[in-house]
Order: sequence, then C-alpha cells, then structure tokens
Amino acid sequence: MAETEPDTAPETAEPPIQAEDLIGLNPSLSRSISQALDDGDDDAVNSLIEPLHYVEIANLLEQMHPESRRMFVEHHSSNFDPEILPELDENVRNEVAEILGINTLSTAVSMLESDDALNLLSTLEDSRRDSVMAAVPAAVRTALAEGLKFAEDSAGRLMQRDFVAVPAFWTVGETIDFLRDSVDLPNDFYDVFIVDPGHRPIGTVTLSRILRSKRPVQMDEIMQPEILSVPVTMDQEEVAYIFSQYHLVSAPVIDDGGRLIGVIMVDDVVEVIHEEAEEDFMRLGGVREDDLYAAVLDTGRSRFSWLFVNLGTALLASIVIGFFQGTIEQIVMLAVLMPIAASMGGNAGTQTLTVVVRAIAMKEITGANAGRVISKEILVGIFNGLMFAVIIGAAAWLWTGELPIGLVMAAAIIVTMFVAGLAGTAIPLGLSRTGVDPAVASGVFLTTITDVVAFCAFLGLASLFLL
Amino acid sequence: MAETEPDTAPETAEPPIQAEDLIGLNPSLSRSISQALDDGDDDAVNSLIEPLHYVEIANLLEQMHPESRRMFVEHHSSNFDPEILPELDENVRNEVAEILGINTLSTAVSMLESDDALNLLSTLEDSRRDSVMAAVPAAVRTALAEGLKFAEDSAGRLMQRDFVAVPAFWTVGETIDFLRDSVDLPNDFYDVFIVDPGHRPIGTVTLSRILRSKRPVQMDEIMQPEILSVPVTMDQEEVAYIFSQYHLVSAPVIDDGGRLIGVIMVDDVVEVIHEEAEEDFMRLGGVREDDLYAAVLDTGRSRFSWLFVNLGTALLASIVIGFFQGTIEQIVMLAVLMPIAASMGGNAGTQTLTVVVRAIAMKEITGANAGRVISKEILVGIFNGLMFAVIIGAAAWLWTGELPIGLVMAAAIIVTMFVAGLAGTAIPLGLSRTGVDPAVASGVFLTTITDVVAFCAFLGLASLFLL
Repeated sequence: MAETEPDTAPETAEPPIQAEDLIGLNPSLSRSISQALDDGDDDAVNSLIEPLHYVEIANLLEQMHPESRRMFVEHHSSNFDPEILPELDENVRNEVAEILGINTLSTAVSMLESDDALNLLSTLEDSRRDSVMAAVPAAVRTALAEGLKFAEDSAGRLMQRDFVAVPAFWTVGETIDFLRDSVDLPNDFYDVFIVDPGHRPIGTVTLSRILRSKRPVQMDEIMQPEILSVPVTMDQEEVAYIFSQYHLVSAPVIDDGGRLIGVIMVDDVVEVIHEEAEEDFMRLGGVREDDLYAAVLDTGRSRFSWLFVNLGTALLASIVIGFFQGTIEQIVMLAVLMPIAASMGGNAGTQTLTVVVRAIAMKEITGANAGRVISKEILVGIFNGLMFAVIIGAAAWLWTGELPIGLVMAAAIIVTMFVAGLAGTAIPLGLSRTGVDPAVASGVFLTTITDVVAFCAFLGLASLFLL
Repeated sequence: MAETEPDTAPETAEPPIQAEDLIGLNPSLSRSISQALDDGDDDAVNSLIEPLHYVEIANLLEQMHPESRRMFVEHHSSNFDPEILPELDENVRNEVAEILGINTLSTAVSMLESDDALNLLSTLEDSRRDSVMAAVPAAVRTALAEGLKFAEDSAGRLMQRDFVAVPAFWTVGETIDFLRDSVDLPNDFYDVFIVDPGHRPIGTVTLSRILRSKRPVQMDEIMQPEILSVPVTMDQEEVAYIFSQYHLVSAPVIDDGGRLIGVIMVDDVVEVIHEEAEEDFMRLGGVREDDLYAAVLDTGRSRFSWLFVNLGTALLASIVIGFFQGTIEQIVMLAVLMPIAASMGGNAGTQTLTVVVRAIAMKEITGANAGRVISKEILVGIFNGLMFAVIIGAAAWLWTGELPIGLVMAAAIIVTMFVAGLAGTAIPLGLSRTGVDPAVASGVFLTTITDVVAFCAFLGLASLFLL
C-alpha cells in the first residue's frame, strides 16, 4: 500500500514506518479473506478475521466488492460485532443493516454506547429505524428517543450520558469509595465533575489528581474551577472549535437549566473535526459529500446539480465573449489568448478564496481585522498582477509579433488579478455575513466574476485600441 | 461576530449558541483593549486581559494591528504567559519572539511542556534559536537538543517525555503509593503504562480502572494488553491516522529498541489533524500554506510559483486553440462556445479529484478497490456527460440556429466529461504511486488535460464536420 501514502516518502535510505505496518489489516490479508469467502470456507474466514480490530473489519467491509460484502455479513451475522456499524461509511452501513435484519440491529443498538447508538439510528432509513426502536428494550428505547430529540450534529448527539459527578463537599476518600462501589459507571472516564445542589457543574477534578491526593482532602480544594460547559443544543462544529482551541480532553454538557446531563470526550470530537474538515474540502471541490461508496447513479445525480450551476457561469462567460464576435472576427488571435487571462484570474482568486474560507471557518477573521485582510489580498493581487502582466504581455508580444496585443494583454491581466484579490475576499466575507456557507457558494461567484472581468477587459480593451 | 459563522444559521427563531458566547474574548472587548493600548493605559489593559485564557490572548494578538501588537508585547513582556507562544501563528510568533528578546524567550522555553517547547524552538529563526538554547539551563538544553534530533513532524516532536510506567508485577496499592509519593510526574495523565524489564510497553491501565480496583490486585491482571506503540520516527500524519481510526486517547512512543520513551496524547493529535486537513485544503486551492498573517510580499511571492505553473497549463490550452485559428476565422461562434466545454470538463474532473484525493489521504483506496473506484468515476463522467450533452447541445443549437454546431458541442461534452472522470481518478492515484502528494499537483495536470481535450474535441470535430 506504499502507493497510497506519498507524504511519508522516504527521505533517507530507510523506508518510513507507516500506519499499515502496525495494524492488522493489509492488502494480502484482504485478498486471503476474499479468497476464503469465494471458496465458501467459513472456518478460514473466521480464523483470518479473528485477530482483527473492529475498525479493521469495518475498513475491510468498505473495500470489499458488494457481493463479497453480502456473503461476509450473511455468514457472520450471528457473531457480528456491533462496534463495526458506527465505523462504516453511511452507504455501506445501510447495505449491511439491510442484510443483518431488525433483530441483530436492535441487539447492536442496545449494546452500543449512547452516542454511537444514536449515530447509527439516525442514519438508518426511516422504516428500519422505527422497527429497530420497537424491538429494543423499553429502557433503551426511552433513552434513545430522548437522544433523537436533539438536533442532528448537536452536542446532544455527541455526548455520553454516563458520567461521574459528585458534590463539592465530598472528600477524596468518599469519592474513591463511591467509584469503587458503583456498578453502573462508564467503562473508562478521565474526569470527575463537581456539581452544586442544583446539579450544575462547577468544576472538574482529573483522576490523576484524585489518585495523588490524600483521602481527607475535600474535592472542591483540588478541583479546577474554571470549566467551559457546552449547551446541549450547540452545533458540533462549535463544540469541536472549543475543544481544539482550549485543548480540552472532556467537557460537561448542560441542559437549558444549566444542569449536567452528559459529557463529551475528545476522541468523539476527533471524528467531528475529521467530518467538518472533509465537508469544507469537499465543498471547495464542488462535491456535496464524500460519495466514494455511493452508487453510480446517486453520485451522478448529486454532482449534476453543482455542474448545472457552473454551467450558468460558463454560459455567462460565453455571452460576454459573444458581444465581441466582431472583434474576434478581425483578430482571431484574441480567441487564442483570451483563456489565459480568465485562467490566471480564476487561479489567483481561488488562492485568496481558499485562505479566506479557511480563516472564516477557524474564526480568524473578525470585525477587527476584516479590512486589513481585504486590503492585503488586493495588494497581493496587484503585486502578482504586475508580475504576470510583464511575463504574459511579453509572451503575447513575442507570439503575435504585435506589441499592442501584448500591452492589451498586460492591462487585462492587471485588472483581472486586482479584481480576483478583491472578489476572493469580499465574496466569502459577504456570503458568511448573510448566513450562507462560504465554502459552498464562493467558488461559483468567484469564477463568474473573474471570467466575466477577464473576457471584458481583454476583448474590450482590444476593441478600443486594436481595431 | 455572527457574520463569520454561517453554518449555524438559525433554523428556529432562537439564535444558536456559538463558541463566542461561551468564551472570554469578543469584538467589543478587543476594541476596548485596543483603545486602552492606544491611550497608553497599562492598568486598564491589565485589568481587561486578566480574565482571558492564554488561548484568547493569542487570538487577540493575531488579530491586532502590528503596531498595537508591538506595544502590547513590549508593555507586558515581564508577565507574558509562555503558554501564549505555541498558540500563535508562525508569522506572528516570530514577530513576538523578536520583541520579547532572548531572556524572556529562554525562560518561556524552560517553562513549557517538552512538545510545546520543541515546537516553539523549531519555528524560531536559526540565530535566535541558538541564542535561546545557549541561555536555558543545561538540563533543559540537553533534553531539547535530543528532541530537536527527531525529524520535524515526527512522533518524537509530538510526544511528552513525562509519563508513568510501572512493572507488571506491581499491585494497584503499590502503584497508587508510587503515584502519591513521586514529585516529578506530569500534571495530568490518563493512563499508566506497564513495561517489561527491558522497559518495553506491554499494556496500559486507565486511571479509572486503577481507582476502581482493590489494592492487592496485580497490575497485569487489569491491564489492557493489546496496545499500539508508535515508533518515534513515525510521521505525525500517520500518528493522527492511527489515533482517529482506533479512537485512542493516548499511545506509548518507542525507540528503535522498542523501549518506551514518551507518550502522545489525543489533544496534541487534534492539532495535527487540524494542520493536516488545512494542508490538504490549502493545496487543493493552490496555496502552499495558510498565509493569512504573512506580509504582502511574502504572500505574493509564495503564491507566484503556483500561478506560474498554472500559466504553463493556460499557454498549452492557447497553443491547442492556435492550431484551429483557421476554423475559428470561418465560424467565430466556436470561440464563443469553446470555454463551455473546457469549464464543464474542469469542474467535473475537480469533483472526482476531490473525492479521490481525500480517499487517498484517508487510506480508503487500496489495491483491492482502486479498479472499482476508477470504473465508477468513468461511469459517473459518462452519465453526466450524456445529460449535459443534451442540455448544452440543445442550447448551442438554439443560440446559433445551427443543428450541426449543437451536435459537435454535444459530442465534445461527452468526450471531455468521460476523460475528466478518468483523469480525475488516474492522476491522483498515479501521482501517489510515484510518491508525489496528490493534493499538490493533481489540479494542474487535471485542468491541463481537460482543457486540451475539450478544445481539441470541440474545435477538431468542428473542423471535420462543419467546414
């Protein structure tokens, strides 16, 4: 699998150690498992997957041919590890859920941690979700129904409902005894929350601090009093922002009344950061969401709409060129050169746009520095505009043998790249001010503007000065 | 600051809770601090920043005008919180480091945790780093020099050198007594590592498990034996991959001999995930790195090289168009329509490229499914190629009144979008096989190919059938 990991290309003679060298799943094992499945040799399959982590089985399932996947799940539905399900891509997950059937699914949902169970349920098709909900034990159903009331992508969906909270007047000794004797605590936890009589969080104590304190010490003496509580309705993107800004390991989640109702752990936030980064990346590339595992028709249809919007941009550019047909008729070379101005404007604008869209997502642009960012990008546009005006102008002069064409080209490049810098900052800032996600729509507006400006400037100046 | 947060636009009447509502820094406070700085009122500045977290002071510094920043740092260098430094953008950090001077810097380096200190040192200018190293206490210097030997972006730079490791035969009681009595333990830790006599990690025990076990229980009875040890030379991107795939909270770091030498915590990995996601995002947009806080000239120069490479692409497209000057001379409308084919090809190819580049980075494409991904993207290309051939062909026919032009356009769109699907998968897969980062170079190759194919197909077919 060395071919899929260019970033760690060897800089010395020794090959770099890659994640694949440490983990259980490798291409040759994948092939052996496929072979055993094709042969119908269940024992061989079982012994091959036995040492694998559930994450690795999920990866294996994703990469399998749909037919092998069906066979695999059918033959192993009785001992199917529920932890595999939340790891699967949504498309693959629904496929697997269909094969597993309602009974196995409802057992899985009952066994998973609350955030994973909710995540799984929320991605199932509606009718399947209802059947699963009807099949789980009543206590689980109540908890899940409560969880499903929180908006998707909210802190409520992300949090664990199991946590440890003790009153401020307890001693370290009392707390340790409580921890030892309670049976329904989470498997692993890292902090103990301190709550007031209204069950509102007022501080945290890390387990290492409890372990290192004497038994008679009171909890509020060793607690970290400043804590950031996350409202249960907060969007997961905001939660991730807070965790990464403040290097949090866990954070309490509170309801409207400020009462502690759950805890979010940093490892759940890691997934959110991945998702949100992926979302921005995909949107910049004109894809609604990662569709690697989606069917051809679904993928084609979902990408169609973006291409259709872009077609509008392209048509607009064509209409602009259409105004100058007479000019092109007289100097055909203009048609040859005009895409250069449009391409430079589009690329320069995209550079600016990329930096600004990312800065908006990271909350790095505020009222205090927006003006400075815009002026800087305009200056960068003028700087590179001048550089490329010289280079491209000279190239056009040499190619056509006509100095005036070179001069018109140079002027068009300066105008276009100035506008690219301005539009690359103003469009995303303007969109985000009106509540539109700048990552989605900025690109279309930008290339529309840079194309129109480039063609207008180049062909317009040519009409004025060359005819 | 509502304008910078489009993703959480209100869906109900109630405004969504944003990170800004919870944290200490807000635009009006920023303005008050700037005002107090301008007035030279140090007491006011001090009382305004007193409640702020170091992360917030770092954000404040980044957003300040360079002049205010200088004033702020100069007036507060004596009580400058060292934790602020690692939080700063590299450009701002070097500016602040210059103002602080070697003495304050070396004190800061000695006080920071080992990974933060290394990170800070490695971004300082060479001469300043040497001076700081000369000024820190000898013990700190030795540890730092050792750390600097590890490659940048390796696990060795990411790890903490402080961790807790005990032998397998110790009891819970002995471990707890050891934790209570040791003075040089890390402030907060979440796991205790179990090591064999050769100091190789053989398991972990979470603190919650230690707390909930009886004192006479032996550590190896409660340890989690399967642990993934990270080699100290591993690239941070691989480390982040392992953490997020396996939902790790911490992982031991081992040297060549397999001995435990450090620990990486998930909160350090969160930063790496941010960095790596940002890197891919920036590269897709043609920017080497986030340059929001860089000077105009530096930004202009660093973006120039990417634009220059793209100029080559644009010139190649122009040369292709140049071959068909005779054809354009006879039917000028071709020059008006030709950018549409190129634009559709470029956009469709970029969609495919985005999904494939991301999948390569996430190690989701292996030998087992590469063929399937390529065939799927080609089918998607043909699907949308057929749809848009009908739409754009009809539009071209209506616009020009010439059915043959519509047919040539339709054929060119099908060819271009088929090639876009093929090139959008084949280019990144091929690049990564040769060890080049597909996020950096794929875009140029792709648009070169889609432009050349689009112009060749449209103008070539026009030459054959319309003249």
